[in-house]
Amino acid sequence: MRTWTKCVVLSIVAAMVCGVALAQFTKPEEAIDYRQSAMVLIGQHFGRMAAMVKGERPYNKAEFAHNAAVVQMVSELPWDAFMMAGSAKGETKMKAAALTEKDKFMADAEKLETETRKLAEAADAGDLNAIKAQFNEVANACKLCHTSYRNK
Amino acid sequence: MRTWTKCVVLSIVAAMVCGVALAQFTKPEEAIDYRQSAMVLIGQHFGRMAAMVKGERPYNKAEFAHNAAVVQMVSELPWDAFMMAGSAKGETKMKAAALTEKDKFMADAEKLETETRKLAEAADAGDLNAIKAQFNEVANACKLCHTSYRNK
Repeated sequence: MRTWTKCVVLSIVAAMVCGVALAQFTKPEEAIDYRQSAMVLIGQHFGRMAAMVKGERPYNKAEFAHNAAVVQMVSELPWDAFMMAGSAKGETKMKAAALTEKDKFMADAEKLETETRKLAEAADAGDLNAIKAQFNEVANACKLCHTSYRNK
Repeated sequence: MRTWTKCVVLSIVAAMVCGVALAQFTKPEEAIDYRQSAMVLIGQHFGRMAAMVKGERPYNKAEFAHNAAVVQMVSELPWDAFMMAGSAKGETKMKAAALTEKDKFMADAEKLETETRKLAEAADAGDLNAIKAQFNEVANACKLCHTSYRNK
């Protein structure tokens, strides 16, 4: 294969592997808006679960499972938006360290995805004690990343 | 059954039927923030599909299907947030008519959900002509509601 052909093939493979993680935001403000929006949805549905975990609202299996499914699904979305170059400035609470510690940041993100997936499974199963334990794991995963990469 | 028992049972049934549609926002600003966040996500992923439909980006089946799945999933979320009493004021483009024409608004929302579901199916199948046709149906569903209920 000629060099340019190899480059084309490699580019296609890279695009397939990276898939949706390819940077698609045209400017930092757009990436910031997107990731904050994802966090608003996560926060809202996490809060609804928290109210049931704390007993402030009665536990409802279907409702809890819906909230857990939304958090799981949305928690898969915003990480490439956080990694956009130049997006640690402006209307954001993200610390610049997130961009320089990309591997650690992405490991934290992966941790959240894993824990939210487990919570969605526990929510479907419906054992409230198991749900509460896994809810705490999700909360810890949130804190882990916020402590390192989010300004107060 | 005594009357109060009937009331309790009916309340439980109502809660189950209404499920996640039960108002859970504590104030209008929270509902506005939530629905705008959902629209940011929908807009971003709709835009990514639009770029492929228009040929500005090469069509990639997996990427398109991911975008369609996100739009489908998020398009199920924000309607109760739009219906919150008092949320036609403040930092929102929603026309007050949305609250007084709830049935029509919700029918428009249902239309969007139906069309985005069909788009996700077409995206999974991967026939680009069918995808383009269904993408236009989704765009029309967006416009339908924006024309009636969104200020410019």
